Amino acid sequence: MPKISAKGNSMPASPIRKLVPYAETAKIAGRKIYHLNIGQPDIETPQIMLEAIKNSEIKVLEYSHSAGFESYRKKLASYYQRFNISIDATEMIITTGGSEALQIAMMTCFDPGDEIIIPEPFYANYNGFSCAAGLIVKPVKSFIETGFALPPISEFEKLISPKTKGIMICNPGNPTGYLYSREELELLKQLVIKYDLFFLSDEVYREFCYDGKEYVSVMHLKGIDNNVVLLDSISKRYSACGARIGALISKNKEIMAAALKFAQARLSPPTFGQIGAEAALNTPKEYFDTVQKEYIGRRDFVIDALNKMDGVFCPKPSGAFYCIARLPIDDSDKFCQWLLESFEFKGETVMLAPATGFYSTPGSGKNEVRLAYVLNKEELKKAMICLENALKVYPRRV
Amino acid sequence: MPKISAKGNSMPASPIRKLVPYAETAKIAGRKIYHLNIGQPDIETPQIMLEAIKNSEIKVLEYSHSAGFESYRKKLASYYQRFNISIDATEMIITTGGSEALQIAMMTCFDPGDEIIIPEPFYANYNGFSCAAGLIVKPVKSFIETGFALPPISEFEKLISPKTKGIMICNPGNPTGYLYSREELELLKQLVIKYDLFFLSDEVYREFCYDGKEYVSVMHLKGIDNNVVLLDSISKRYSACGARIGALISKNKEIMAAALKFAQARLSPPTFGQIGAEAALNTPKEYFDTVQKEYIGRRDFVIDALNKMDGVFCPKPSGAFYCIARLPIDDSDKFCQWLLESFEFKGETVMLAPATGFYSTPGSGKNEVRLAYVLNKEELKKAMICLENALKVYPRRV
Repeated sequence: MPKISAKGNSMPASPIRKLVPYAETAKIAGRKIYHLNIGQPDIETPQIMLEAIKNSEIKVLEYSHSAGFESYRKKLASYYQRFNISIDATEMIITTGGSEALQIAMMTCFDPGDEIIIPEPFYANYNGFSCAAGLIVKPVKSFIETGFALPPISEFEKLISPKTKGIMICNPGNPTGYLYSREELELLKQLVIKYDLFFLSDEVYREFCYDGKEYVSVMHLKGIDNNVVLLDSISKRYSACGARIGALISKNKEIMAAALKFAQARLSPPTFGQIGAEAALNTPKEYFDTVQKEYIGRRDFVIDALNKMDGVFCPKPSGAFYCIARLPIDDSDKFCQWLLESFEFKGETVMLAPATGFYSTPGSGKNEVRLAYVLNKEELKKAMICLENALKVYPRRV
Repeated sequence: MPKISAKGNSMPASPIRKLVPYAETAKIAGRKIYHLNIGQPDIETPQIMLEAIKNSEIKVLEYSHSAGFESYRKKLASYYQRFNISIDATEMIITTGGSEALQIAMMTCFDPGDEIIIPEPFYANYNGFSCAAGLIVKPVKSFIETGFALPPISEFEKLISPKTKGIMICNPGNPTGYLYSREELELLKQLVIKYDLFFLSDEVYREFCYDGKEYVSVMHLKGIDNNVVLLDSISKRYSACGARIGALISKNKEIMAAALKFAQARLSPPTFGQIGAEAALNTPKEYFDTVQKEYIGRRDFVIDALNKMDGVFCPKPSGAFYCIARLPIDDSDKFCQWLLESFEFKGETVMLAPATGFYSTPGSGKNEVRLAYVLNKEELKKAMICLENALKVYPRRV
C-alpha cells in the first residue's frame, strides 16, 4: 500500500470538525445543541438572489469564463465603488468561494518554503491552505486584553527573514471580530513597503462593521497596488455560503496573469452561484440595515452575558459576528468536548469552537473559545444560560 | 514589487486559451467560427436536473457537508452499482468539478518532487495541476498509428525511478477518445502492484463508449483497492459543465481521511450544483441513448470526412467525443492560429486545438490537432468543408 503525501499527513484537521463526533453523542443522547461553533448565519439569503437562480433560462449548463461572467465582474466593480475601492473587471477573478481565492493567491504569490506572517488568532483554514501550498505561517500573537488589536510592528519585524514574502490579515477579523483602524493599516503598509512583501487581506466581513467605525480596506492604501491582494466572498454578505462564490482581486498584472492560469486549469466557477451573486448585487440597502441591527443586538447581548459570568472575559468586537472569550477552564478542547459529551442543562447544551485551533503557536488559546453569534436572541439567551451553568459545574474549572 | 512564485511563472497556459486572442480577431472580422476546440457539448442538460434547481426551496443557502450532501452520495453509490462499481457514501467526496477531485487527489497522494507517469497525449490541465502540486509528469508516448493504444509496459518501466509514486490514465480518453481494454488495464494493474504505485483514473467519459465496446473501470480491477483513486465529474455525463460537481473516490481509508481534510479546508462543494446532480441521477436511460446515438453519428461523419481529406489521417476512437487527426502541416499551433487570423471559406472558419498542448514531450503533436465533435452534424459538415479548403491553401502545408 503506497504512502500518502507528507502534506496529506500534516494537513491540520479543522478545529471545529474535531468536535463533530462528540456532537453526534450529544444528539444521540437527545440533547438540543446550540451551534455557536461555526460561522453559518441563520439570516435568510436575499430573495432577489434565490429568485434569479429559479428564473434562470438555461438549456445547456455550460462552463463560464474562467475569471467568471464578465457581466458579473463589471457589476461587481460598481459594488466595490460604493466602498471607494476602484477596480475594474480585469482586476478580479471570480473564484469558488473565498477559499479558492486564498488557494490561488497563495500558489500565485508564494513558493513552498516561503514564510507568511499572520496575526493570531486567525481563521483556522489559513493553516490548511498554507500547508497545501507548502507555505510556512509565522504567527504574531495578538492579545485578548487589547481586544486583539494589531500587535506592535516590532513584533512583525522580529519575524522577518530572507524567506518572508508576505503578510496576511482578516479585516474585520474572524475569529476575533476585531476591526483594524486606518492607523494600524498604515503601519502595516510601511512594513510591506520596507520589506517589499505581498499583502493579502481577507475582507469578507466588510458589511459587518459596527458602532460607526470605519471600514478601511487594503485597497484604500496608496502606493502599494502591486503588493496588495484582496480576498473576498459573498458567503457572509448575503448569507449565501453554499453559493461558493468569491473573488481574488489585485492591481498587480503579474499576479492576475498567473492567477488566471490557475483559474483556467480548473475551468470555471459555479454557474448558478454566479447567477445568484450577480442578482444579489441589487439587494436593497434595507436588507443590510436589518441584518446589521440584528447582529449588533446579538453581539451586545452575548458580550454582556459573557462578561457577567464569573471568571469570564470577552472584549467587545466591532466587526464580523464572532467573539473570543476567556473562560475559567483548564483546556478549551476538553471543555468543548465535555459540553457535548457530558453536560446538559434542561436537556440542552452548547457547541463552541476551542480557540486553540485559531492559534498557530502551540499552547495558545487553551483558556479561550470562539463564539459565532449566528442564532436569534431567544436561542442565544438559552445558549448563554447553558454556558453559565456549564462553567459552574465543569470539573476542571480553574 | 515582490516577485510572484516560480509556480505562477511556470504554470502552463491552457493550449486552447492561447488561441483566444486570434479567435477575437476572427470575430472582429465578422467570420463565423465553428468551435471544435473545446469539450463544451451543445447537448441540452436534462430537464430533470434544471427543474430540481428551479424548484429548490432554500431559505438560507448554507454550506453543505464538506464531502457533499449525504443524500447525494448515497444515491450516487447506486449510480456506480449500474457499472458494477461497488462503493459506499463514505468512499467518496463530492468535489467542485473533476478539476478539484484531481487537485485534492494529487495533494493527498503526492509530495512535491514526486513523479507520475501518464500516457501522452493527455488532458492538458493534468500539466497545470501537476505544476500546482509540484508533481513531475513523466510522459509515455502513445501513437496515432495504433489509435493511441496503451504503450508497451516496458516503456512505463523505463521511467520508473525512486521518485515514481503513481500513474494516471483518462479512460475513455481526452484528447484521444481511446478506450482501454480489460487486457490493457490488467497490464497496468501488474505494474501498479509491482512498484506499489497510486493508480489515478479519470473516467468522466464513462457514458461515451461506442461500438459495443466494454467500459472497464480501475474500480473493477481486483486486489488494488488501496492503490486506486477514481476521478469523476458530471460535466460531460449530463452536459452540465457549469454545475461544477465531481467526485474523488477511493477505498483507501488513509487517502479518504486526508482528502477530507483538504475538502474541509475549502468548506463545501456548490449547493445548487449538488441539488442538480442529485436530481440528474434520475435521468431516463433514453437521454443517454439519444446522446450516444448523436455522438456516434457525429464521430462517424467527422472521422470519415477527415480521412477523405488529402494527407489527413485520423484513427476512429471508441469513446468520449474527441479525436486527434494528423494533418499535412508544419506546425499545429501556427496552423490553428492561421485558421483564425488569416483564413475564411464563405465567411466561415474553424477553431481547433493544437495537439502540442496535450503532449508533455517537447516537439510532439506538431502535425496533430484535437477536434471535439460537440456540434450538430449540419455544423460539423460545414466545419469539415472549411478545414478541407483550409488545408488546400495553407501556405506551410507539408
